[in-house]
Amino acid sequence: MTTRKGNLMSVRTDIKVLDATIRDGGLCNNFEFSDEFVRELYKTNIKSGVDYMEFGYKASKNLFNPDDFGKWKFCDEEDIRAIVGENVSDMKIAVMADVGRCDFKTDFLPKSESVIDMIRVACYIHQIPSAIEMIEYFHNLGYETTCNIMAISQANSEQIQEALDMLGGSSVDVIYLVDSYGSLYPESAGKLAKVYLNAAEKYGKSIGFHAHNNQNLAFANTIETMSYGVSYLDATASGMGRGAGNCAMELLLGFLKNPKYSLYSLLTFIEKYILPLKADGVVWGFDVQYMLTGQLNRHPREAMAFTSDKRSDYFEFYKELLENE
Amino acid sequence: MTTRKGNLMSVRTDIKVLDATIRDGGLCNNFEFSDEFVRELYKTNIKSGVDYMEFGYKASKNLFNPDDFGKWKFCDEEDIRAIVGENVSDMKIAVMADVGRCDFKTDFLPKSESVIDMIRVACYIHQIPSAIEMIEYFHNLGYETTCNIMAISQANSEQIQEALDMLGGSSVDVIYLVDSYGSLYPESAGKLAKVYLNAAEKYGKSIGFHAHNNQNLAFANTIETMSYGVSYLDATASGMGRGAGNCAMELLLGFLKNPKYSLYSLLTFIEKYILPLKADGVVWGFDVQYMLTGQLNRHPREAMAFTSDKRSDYFEFYKELLENE
Repeated sequence: MTTRKGNLMSVRTDIKVLDATIRDGGLCNNFEFSDEFVRELYKTNIKSGVDYMEFGYKASKNLFNPDDFGKWKFCDEEDIRAIVGENVSDMKIAVMADVGRCDFKTDFLPKSESVIDMIRVACYIHQIPSAIEMIEYFHNLGYETTCNIMAISQANSEQIQEALDMLGGSSVDVIYLVDSYGSLYPESAGKLAKVYLNAAEKYGKSIGFHAHNNQNLAFANTIETMSYGVSYLDATASGMGRGAGNCAMELLLGFLKNPKYSLYSLLTFIEKYILPLKADGVVWGFDVQYMLTGQLNRHPREAMAFTSDKRSDYFEFYKELLENE
Repeated sequence: MTTRKGNLMSVRTDIKVLDATIRDGGLCNNFEFSDEFVRELYKTNIKSGVDYMEFGYKASKNLFNPDDFGKWKFCDEEDIRAIVGENVSDMKIAVMADVGRCDFKTDFLPKSESVIDMIRVACYIHQIPSAIEMIEYFHNLGYETTCNIMAISQANSEQIQEALDMLGGSSVDVIYLVDSYGSLYPESAGKLAKVYLNAAEKYGKSIGFHAHNNQNLAFANTIETMSYGVSYLDATASGMGRGAGNCAMELLLGFLKNPKYSLYSLLTFIEKYILPLKADGVVWGFDVQYMLTGQLNRHPREAMAFTSDKRSDYFEFYKELLENE
């Protein structure tokens, strides 16, 4: 049984913090961030000691019309470079590629020609073979890779073990445990993390965790899985992300003991850029409707519709959810 | 070492849920709830299976002028009876009495003449002898009693052990671990809970937990301490409570597996009574300023002032906090 690594006072030098604000937060505003927002976040992340910044998706322009989305749905090389130049910093650049939603054989440059460092391949557990095909392709182009297995709370133990063994035999660098529905508790997230970490040890991989805040447990689950050895930790500024949002970066930076991490710049960024976003009507964060889908271990789509319809009849909504179980 | 009791799927019949909305939430609105609010909450709690409802403080009218506060600061017997009648229900009635802030020898009836069932004695750890004097007095009047030792994150291990031994020798029924500053993590809250539970086993007491949500960990810490055997769990509707608030009752009721607990009525109460309260400008809940005092293990008073001054300069606030360390 995997025991806790380190303690609440010591530094874990294996930790990597990844800011996913533009990618997961982009799901709240259709990826329509101003260049100023993205540039200031980039500078803030560098000052904060963040290890990776995810800029968005590399989505297929054949499947998604670029006129319908902000540019961070597509993350063209020149758009990233317009923000980061040659990225003369210690922070690495990540993008996400969804299985089945990207043209991975045409839309990615060799790493030597790109400012991108890491490609995160997101998939459901039945798509692992497709994910591995993409991972090997990206690995051969020279990128770091992750596999983010989504909606893991709906998979069974045998599926998870099989997926971990398949990925263990691949070139992937990091395997992510993704609580898409925000339905895990610290106790269950910790147990799952131990399963992932056992595979990681066997195959020489690292494990990451990506939380959702449906039950106000995003931060709790992040530090609980971290305590057992999970080392890649996703967070976003003020928790900005789909529905109930993610683990808040300010909570995570305030918790980590490594002096390379600093909270100061992010506090200014929140005041100058997150508060105006909220004042403009961009909505995310813990609320009763997301709690209910999280408690029921369900996709938050009904809660998102409830939110966009500006409903507050939680009782009726709960009945609707239970009728559709 | 105490191990987890039960698991995420089973029922723990020793659990008692206590609603502290009027008492801790009263700190947000000067205890000025309408009778309708309190009566509907009372009915909601009964329907929800809540075990205890705390109505407020029994504060000294010599120290606090009744004209300056709503009536739930004082919890006169006739005011409680105006809501609950003879309390013909399975739910018990609790009130809080602060050491040094109540006239305990004049303001409490014998239990046989009162609709109150439980008196919760709140104190700081250096006030344990005074708390025990009150506990013995209330016990002799016929009441159930708790001792809620506040700000425990600032006490050291020897103090805590001494306090637990002193209370162990008293007539108190329940000893509460109170994270007044919202600075505990699930890992540290769990460790502290085990210390309390070891004393509880030795002396035949029960242990309770009262959380604050400064780091968005109120619910996480509640279920973590519960998993080791803590059985009295405080929560409030929508987490209403001082500063960052408490563990949200809707999260706790949705988590507990005992079918006696139900979420339905609370969802209606939130829509009909909590949303209007927020719309009227009553403020509580997780926010950056409370996170910062929680991370620094400090009283939230500066964060409360920051909130009431409607400030948002988090960076300056953080500097001020660090300058006053």
